[in-house]
Amino acid sequence: MHKLTSSEAKFERSPDQDGDIFIADMIGKDNSSPVTICFGRYGPDQELSETMAVDDIMIILEGKPTVISRGETHTADTSDVVHVPKGEPVVIRSYGDGALTAYVTYPHWKDA
Amino acid sequence: MHKLTSSEAKFERSPDQDGDIFIADMIGKDNSSPVTICFGRYGPDQELSETMAVDDIMIILEGKPTVISRGETHTADTSDVVHVPKGEPVVIRSYGDGALTAYVTYPHWKDA
Repeated sequence: MHKLTSSEAKFERSPDQDGDIFIADMIGKDNSSPVTICFGRYGPDQELSETMAVDDIMIILEGKPTVISRGETHTADTSDVVHVPKGEPVVIRSYGDGALTAYVTYPHWKDA
Repeated sequence: MHKLTSSEAKFERSPDQDGDIFIADMIGKDNSSPVTICFGRYGPDQELSETMAVDDIMIILEGKPTVISRGETHTADTSDVVHVPKGEPVVIRSYGDGALTAYVTYPHWKDA
């Protein structure tokens, strides 16, 4: 088993954007895992637009980001889980307190 | 997309045990999802012993459970993520404050 703690993670700028949004890849196919496990950190007032190439399950650890999909805005609270199916366009927006998330993708997002 | 909140979840007693451990299945193959997403709730001082039939990714939302695997004891704090690979035996133990978790399984645990 692996225990993953965001305070011990190495965050890097999220690909294909220059905002204050960072990810830390924790578990992936190098660990013979069928899913990728990451942490995500958003600075204050950031916005990420993406069409999901994989199924993405995001757990809100800190902050109250909004997730906009197909014209509907959902406000996620700390401890909520957001599932974005493959192929769905989303906008994730953080506010003054930023956000910290953990997320799981199937299959590995790096292969998609 | 789906936003999942534990306070709106319907918890049922976890299969194959009679302790104070409850699960709520939130997303699964009925939603065309490749993974199952659940919440788990442990009362105070509960213990669950299991050999994982699937890869299990557990996020600690409340409490500080310990997870024992192959003789090693890991104390998980709130917001930590615990990955238990398929085939690994684990004991999950809650303490006086119980525990609340979200977890993701690949493949669906009901099929395993």
